[in-house]
Amino acid sequence: MASTNSLPGFQMTVNPVFIEKAQELKPLLRETMASPMRISLDGGEWQAAGESIPSLHEGSVLRLDFGHHVTGYVRFSFDTEGSPPDAPALLELSFGEKELELGAQLENYKGNLTASWLQQERIHVDEFPCTIKLPRRYAFRYVEIKILAISPKYQLVLQNVDTRCVSSADILQVKAPDTQDTELCQLDKAGIWTLHECMQDVFEDGPKRDRRMWLGDLYLQAKTNYLTFGNTDLVKRCLYLFAGLRQNEGRVGATLFVRPRLQVDDIYLFDYALFFIFTLYDYYKYTGDEETLQELYATAQRQVEIASERLDEHGLVKDSADWWCFIDWGEGLNKQCSAQAVFILALEKLSWLAEVLGRNEEKQGFFTRMEKAKRAIMRLYDKDKKVFRSGEAGQVSWHSQIWAVLAGVLPEEEARRLLLQLDRLPFKPQTPFMHHFYLEALCKCRFQDKAFAHMKAYWGAMLQEGADTYYESFNPDARDFSPYGAKEIESYCHAWSCTPAYFIRKYCGVAVE
Amino acid sequence: MASTNSLPGFQMTVNPVFIEKAQELKPLLRETMASPMRISLDGGEWQAAGESIPSLHEGSVLRLDFGHHVTGYVRFSFDTEGSPPDAPALLELSFGEKELELGAQLENYKGNLTASWLQQERIHVDEFPCTIKLPRRYAFRYVEIKILAISPKYQLVLQNVDTRCVSSADILQVKAPDTQDTELCQLDKAGIWTLHECMQDVFEDGPKRDRRMWLGDLYLQAKTNYLTFGNTDLVKRCLYLFAGLRQNEGRVGATLFVRPRLQVDDIYLFDYALFFIFTLYDYYKYTGDEETLQELYATAQRQVEIASERLDEHGLVKDSADWWCFIDWGEGLNKQCSAQAVFILALEKLSWLAEVLGRNEEKQGFFTRMEKAKRAIMRLYDKDKKVFRSGEAGQVSWHSQIWAVLAGVLPEEEARRLLLQLDRLPFKPQTPFMHHFYLEALCKCRFQDKAFAHMKAYWGAMLQEGADTYYESFNPDARDFSPYGAKEIESYCHAWSCTPAYFIRKYCGVAVE
Repeated sequence: MASTNSLPGFQMTVNPVFIEKAQELKPLLRETMASPMRISLDGGEWQAAGESIPSLHEGSVLRLDFGHHVTGYVRFSFDTEGSPPDAPALLELSFGEKELELGAQLENYKGNLTASWLQQERIHVDEFPCTIKLPRRYAFRYVEIKILAISPKYQLVLQNVDTRCVSSADILQVKAPDTQDTELCQLDKAGIWTLHECMQDVFEDGPKRDRRMWLGDLYLQAKTNYLTFGNTDLVKRCLYLFAGLRQNEGRVGATLFVRPRLQVDDIYLFDYALFFIFTLYDYYKYTGDEETLQELYATAQRQVEIASERLDEHGLVKDSADWWCFIDWGEGLNKQCSAQAVFILALEKLSWLAEVLGRNEEKQGFFTRMEKAKRAIMRLYDKDKKVFRSGEAGQVSWHSQIWAVLAGVLPEEEARRLLLQLDRLPFKPQTPFMHHFYLEALCKCRFQDKAFAHMKAYWGAMLQEGADTYYESFNPDARDFSPYGAKEIESYCHAWSCTPAYFIRKYCGVAVE
Repeated sequence: MASTNSLPGFQMTVNPVFIEKAQELKPLLRETMASPMRISLDGGEWQAAGESIPSLHEGSVLRLDFGHHVTGYVRFSFDTEGSPPDAPALLELSFGEKELELGAQLENYKGNLTASWLQQERIHVDEFPCTIKLPRRYAFRYVEIKILAISPKYQLVLQNVDTRCVSSADILQVKAPDTQDTELCQLDKAGIWTLHECMQDVFEDGPKRDRRMWLGDLYLQAKTNYLTFGNTDLVKRCLYLFAGLRQNEGRVGATLFVRPRLQVDDIYLFDYALFFIFTLYDYYKYTGDEETLQELYATAQRQVEIASERLDEHGLVKDSADWWCFIDWGEGLNKQCSAQAVFILALEKLSWLAEVLGRNEEKQGFFTRMEKAKRAIMRLYDKDKKVFRSGEAGQVSWHSQIWAVLAGVLPEEEARRLLLQLDRLPFKPQTPFMHHFYLEALCKCRFQDKAFAHMKAYWGAMLQEGADTYYESFNPDARDFSPYGAKEIESYCHAWSCTPAYFIRKYCGVAVE
């Protein structure tokens, strides 16, 4: 996720006690080695990596396939054939989660995200034999080595490539889901691997890009993590980081940087700030860790107060033309109705958390405000057409209906009928993030079969493309569309897409060993 | 210098005793710091480097001028302005001895030398503030920093750039020449700086390219070094390296690599092998170091024996179509006559060295062979036209006349007349290397004034272009011509061009302090 908006007069306030707690929970990264399984020279057929690799001259293009998605540090060893090397070799190294990323030409890049995210390096090698350890971390399955320039007097021989893969997730902790459905097992596996790759010293949104925490991603990662890796300390660490690095007026930022120093970004998003409450709620439900709840409660509460500043006289979230709320990608999507629903759910969860802490007066206050917010959202309900409308123009979208259903503002039968009508509406979900909430809404309305069918259709279509991790953005009806204007800049292993593993485990359970 | 020929069945034979001696003489590099003196943003006017540098965004091009040629390791410090950096920055860094090298596009490169010699790097910077120490050594006066890609949310601020300059030459050892002629003083200064930059742990041909020893360069570097830096140990080291790393049948190679390991290249050149004798002769003349002469004499002698294998029944060096002898660049230049002259001079010098060592029988043998070689070269002399002709087609060139004069095969008046005719002949010298021998021939024939006038005209024309070091190749009548098909790949600080400092000191002497 990326954008260019910034909170006016942005400043960061650090809570050193929270940061110390977060840093004590910093995980050690587990390391494993990976090697390429297949190779292909100059656009030829893939061959098993055991085959000997021909020597490389100027213009040679060698592709390597590691067989699955890896996140880590790459090391190449080269020697030479022919005369003593009488000039440096200039290599272009590309790393791609998908093959389409390889050999991307900077000059031809048309995307609206910074081209520096392309995983491509040009390096000079002056001395042979050599082992080149690239200092940057890459996320990839495929590697391309292109010889941009080399003396005609000698050839390069690739002797070894390997990757020191890193993750804080322990794959051995993950139990199999209790299902014989091989399709579900595959969907589950890709979800787990997506999450595994994103679990570094924080929950990253994507190991390729942006390589940092976003609260929307964290919310769904944490949910899936409880039922898979069970690494509750990493969730706790991330909650303390978001609470410990606050924006103006105590706002929780949409995203945090952890390198080179802890820093909250200057982006504030209405829904993302409230997802702090959603994430804390889940954390407490799963762990029962009352001490953490006690400490982070004030941060959660503050987000509701800040969000409330956007309410109009009817208690309805005010719309605006800037990028104030995420909900989903999608040109022209209006966020008002969805944001109101997120606000309702935040109040509901905060009310429940207040009760846990014995703050009954506060609990009652939040409950009352939630009731008011629920009444307000009904002002957006078109009673004739039986759809929610959003914004001044009364835009109808899948998003508004889905979030309204999740907020529980309609009687169940009406909610069920609304979900069944979605196919006729414009503004479909663009990202697996929004598809997740669609599944949540279906499950909430006892359409679990429909939810699983949609999961197989939507996430399954990525697997049919050969993916072993889930993408940041995917539209099976417009596979060439990129919200960033360039397929090669997209993240093909993205945290917010990992939730099939959550749904499968939640509804099928795990196998008894 | 570069080519693609290789000695058939090439093998290296190492003399460990010689190599140990050479390694004991390995000099420590002196280090000094240099900083840019002028800066220019986006093609604007140069400004003093003290001015504050505006922050850089995508597409910004910052040029730095260090004010003089430097050879060393560069360090940049960057910080940022604006939002926290939310994406890496991708920079292109170019280093140029001349400004024309900056921003060279690999895609547009049309030269016949490997493009990897272009001093250009693309680097990603992930974390700020940062200090980037580039691991490679560069030779440059100008630096270009181009921001290929950066997030619109932040800007780069260049905080510091400096260069750790390296050379084994001690500039404080150099005495001023005994002249008030400011033009000569400038010519001298650029020669000294050229040599300074090429004096690393061996005498390199050029600090940009090829960054290694070639015997032709070494011969002229050593000559100039005796009258400037006076670092005789470095000459001795290089002689032991050439003698200690031999090709098939004891051949001295044309060039040596010192990194990553000591290695003679597989190029053998008739004249370069004989220049080993020239260099040893000068070394002994300057140092009187009989022990070294004793040890290296056999190597010198062997080069004459190998060269003699090319003689025909008349004692004349056989011509061939391959790259068997260097003499000079120049399309279609025939080398036979010049090579014969080099052979004559090698025999003369070897004969003298044999006498020093009391090997009088050998001395007489070489002298007799020299006399025969002198008679043989006169078969190439066109008595009607009074010019030397070279090769089967009887090519007339400056080179043949110059080398024949140096070999002393004509009576002085005839030699003087020949030199005065040169302007009417085709095939002028292409490189400062060949221009050096032209000056030598002029001085030998008591045309010292003409020699100095030519030095002022030829080497001086480089200074008029703003150079402070001399180029590898220079033709004042065809400044856009490049023997490598690309001006940006040429070396603009090249060892074989440093000899104005030699001529000025030889004929003017040094100032008494």
